[in-house]
Amino acid sequence: MMKHFINLSDISSEKLTQIIDTAKELKAAENKQLSAAKGKTLALLFFDPSLRTQVSFQTAAWQLGANVSVMQSGVNTWHIEHLPGALMDGLAQEHIMDVMQVLGSYADAIGIRRFGFGNQQDQAFQDVFFNEALKFSKVPLINLESSVSHPCQSLADRLTWEEVHPNVEKRKVVLRWASHPKPLPRAVPQSFVDMALRSGQKVEVVCPEEFRFSQNYDRYFRHLAQEFDGSFSYKDEIAEDAHVIYVKSWHSIYHPDNPHKDQELRHQHMDWTVHQHHLESSPDARLMHCLPVRRNVVASDEALNHSRSVIYQQAENRMHAQKALLMHIWDLI
Amino acid sequence: MMKHFINLSDISSEKLTQIIDTAKELKAAENKQLSAAKGKTLALLFFDPSLRTQVSFQTAAWQLGANVSVMQSGVNTWHIEHLPGALMDGLAQEHIMDVMQVLGSYADAIGIRRFGFGNQQDQAFQDVFFNEALKFSKVPLINLESSVSHPCQSLADRLTWEEVHPNVEKRKVVLRWASHPKPLPRAVPQSFVDMALRSGQKVEVVCPEEFRFSQNYDRYFRHLAQEFDGSFSYKDEIAEDAHVIYVKSWHSIYHPDNPHKDQELRHQHMDWTVHQHHLESSPDARLMHCLPVRRNVVASDEALNHSRSVIYQQAENRMHAQKALLMHIWDLI
Amino acid sequence: MMKHFINLSDISSEKLTQIIDTAKELKAAENKQLSAAKGKTLALLFFDPSLRTQVSFQTAAWQLGANVSVMQSGVNTWHIEHLPGALMDGLAQEHIMDVMQVLGSYADAIGIRRFGFGNQQDQAFQDVFFNEALKFSKVPLINLESSVSHPCQSLADRLTWEEVHPNVEKRKVVLRWASHPKPLPRAVPQSFVDMALRSGQKVEVVCPEEFRFSQNYDRYFRHLAQEFDGSFSYKDEIAEDAHVIYVKSWHSIYHPDNPHKDQELRHQHMDWTVHQHHLESSPDARLMHCLPVRRNVVASDEALNHSRSVIYQQAENRMHAQKALLMHIWDLI
Repeated sequence: MMKHFINLSDISSEKLTQIIDTAKELKAAENKQLSAAKGKTLALLFFDPSLRTQVSFQTAAWQLGANVSVMQSGVNTWHIEHLPGALMDGLAQEHIMDVMQVLGSYADAIGIRRFGFGNQQDQAFQDVFFNEALKFSKVPLINLESSVSHPCQSLADRLTWEEVHPNVEKRKVVLRWASHPKPLPRAVPQSFVDMALRSGQKVEVVCPEEFRFSQNYDRYFRHLAQEFDGSFSYKDEIAEDAHVIYVKSWHSIYHPDNPHKDQELRHQHMDWTVHQHHLESSPDARLMHCLPVRRNVVASDEALNHSRSVIYQQAENRMHAQKALLMHIWDLI
Repeated sequence: MMKHFINLSDISSEKLTQIIDTAKELKAAENKQLSAAKGKTLALLFFDPSLRTQVSFQTAAWQLGANVSVMQSGVNTWHIEHLPGALMDGLAQEHIMDVMQVLGSYADAIGIRRFGFGNQQDQAFQDVFFNEALKFSKVPLINLESSVSHPCQSLADRLTWEEVHPNVEKRKVVLRWASHPKPLPRAVPQSFVDMALRSGQKVEVVCPEEFRFSQNYDRYFRHLAQEFDGSFSYKDEIAEDAHVIYVKSWHSIYHPDNPHKDQELRHQHMDWTVHQHHLESSPDARLMHCLPVRRNVVASDEALNHSRSVIYQQAENRMHAQKALLMHIWDLI
Repeated sequence: MMKHFINLSDISSEKLTQIIDTAKELKAAENKQLSAAKGKTLALLFFDPSLRTQVSFQTAAWQLGANVSVMQSGVNTWHIEHLPGALMDGLAQEHIMDVMQVLGSYADAIGIRRFGFGNQQDQAFQDVFFNEALKFSKVPLINLESSVSHPCQSLADRLTWEEVHPNVEKRKVVLRWASHPKPLPRAVPQSFVDMALRSGQKVEVVCPEEFRFSQNYDRYFRHLAQEFDGSFSYKDEIAEDAHVIYVKSWHSIYHPDNPHKDQELRHQHMDWTVHQHHLESSPDARLMHCLPVRRNVVASDEALNHSRSVIYQQAENRMHAQKALLMHIWDLI
């Protein structure tokens, strides 16, 4: 059975735990250069920019002995359509149906980044583009960030909170919305909550009301909280006993009849920058952010550079977690 | 003697057959990871987008143990001039004369893609840019698609038709023009006919009269048909006993005094989409296309997804054929 | 202690000599493929185009057994801010502070190209961007061309002049300004003079008065000439006993109150193209240029293609010199 990784639900809880444990072992190992994946190729196709994702996947794959091909849609490769049955007389020169079947004959796994902005009426964790890509993938497909989820980031996030609070069983993890000049996808915050709930944590979301998750996601998260014996709730303030303050901006609820609404709402909340005093009010909290971060807009330099900020540990953990993920996907663990 | 590959005529018929046979062996081999080209570097320079070409050359080279450097002119490398004696006070920052001599001191082979649109009064298979690049190449130069030929595609095409009709000696291969919103280069169709004739096939071209090849190409193709005991002709309809229907769009004959003429002609022939019934009328035919393809413009989803469509086999064969080509060029077979 | 390479002054004279000697040995060695840097990763981040720099660093690293990740700011990676304390509500999505700390957790060295145009009132060899990047680099940082220096080019330049005039102790090296349609950075000429003086050569600069170096640089160069027993002066004509004529264009002195002044000055000096007769008047001289070169603007085809032009030897030497540099940086020599 092919081991895709589009959403966290594609991997069982037991297997997720095993991947995190393998990542810890790989990180601790003295000899980083392995050869288990020698002869394999990982193809990475980007519709959106990256820095951590490209380099951490390259180093992860190289340290397993594999090679990595990198493509940028519309820059060095074609513009790509994904709607089934499309009459392709516009900008797009190639269909994702063909891209997947072709790349699948060269590569042993395909990673794709294509975020954009999900329709809030969507079913939880369904992305139209990835659903189409998946149908035609002959090799494992890895989501490098869709409009609705970023599961590779969540692997690194969980590895990080287990490292910084190793002896806590039920961690209180606070997701704190932040101001931003642009509407950003909900992929990272949704996957963060998803992963936290799947590993039994207590999740509190602090955000303006218009930035809450959709009803479908709320329902999904409450179900997960019950299944894994955690909790999910919205709060007005960051808890003093928070173990993690995860800072992130994302776009507001969907306003089909007013395209300027999101901008207005973000404008009203431009004071939601996270500051040092937020960290100081929660003495156990570690500050997390997936990066890139707009400094002094999302969070102040003082907060991001604080001794309890673990943003670089998170970024480094991308590599270790993804190395373990590749080993899982290629049946090397 | 240096083994360039600009046109099919750069390699003898016997050697072409040997390359195809090597590609079959490499494809059938259980162990894909070789080390024959360890320490070698292949440099790929693109003036136009690619997907198959980049990734299939990368995987082919990696599986031989070589490394691959990828550049995109005007994106991550300079804008490049090629006219001899040019006064370079415009956009171009570097001359191909210098690019070739510099890259030749780092790499063991150079692949270049630069199509554009050949002047129909040109001599057959002469491309001004590639002629200049070739003069200054200190290492083998591989054409990744010029304005007039795409010989690497033809290697994969021949490998494919030999696989799908292994026991036919004289295959009837029909090249069928198709509608398209843009003028496309004649590289693929011209190289397809070239390769088919060189391997003794019977070639029939079905296209609107204004899209026929130039007089120079017609003369060249008739000469090849005679030399290799095949045939070359224009037809009004796809033959019922066709073994291959190769679908492709290309630009019309050159109209120096009317820049809108090509668009008008293509507009008149927007109903030249290939449909399922074309395949059903030719019960032995395999549908071929080099990809990328604009679905439901060039050919319908039903035709491209038909059980007798071999478009993905063709694409996969790029890798195997190019691996054999690199082995030939680097004296490894 | 971390071995950065931002300016030539980062490496002692003795060590620079050792790097050049190692480069000569590597160039002469029969076996080019080594494995000393197996498991290491070199990350290259470009804000400006490259051809020699990318490919020569890739081949150098690959021949040492390392891997190379390539990024282009604003193309496949984010737009990057570097001013400390910046309120990041504009184009830039990520701060160099974060980039350096993140890449440093994946890669074993980071190369950055970002030229632009230095303020002539700056202190010699200080570049605001690189100063910031350096503060946050957890691994060796290599300057692939800043606004003020291009030390990797200078390694290749020195290797070249030692090869073409091996038995001269005090070489007369003439830096000759040339016409150009655009203002170019002063990195290459400043590093050329720097390296020449550090290795005891006699440097003469031939340029229109408005294109002389700043007072800070002149002072720095005169100090170096004294320290290393060479000489530095401005001249009106290329010396007949020149060993090297280094052709290069660069922008004029800084005119904060007149943004059009540089263009006017370059327009007045559009006849400063270097011609064959310049070479013929200096019978021992070798023509050098770092490439890319605008042919027939900076220098004529006849001059660049002259039998005493060594521009391709210089370009090839980038690879050998940088391989030695990587060995130095990674403690492999």
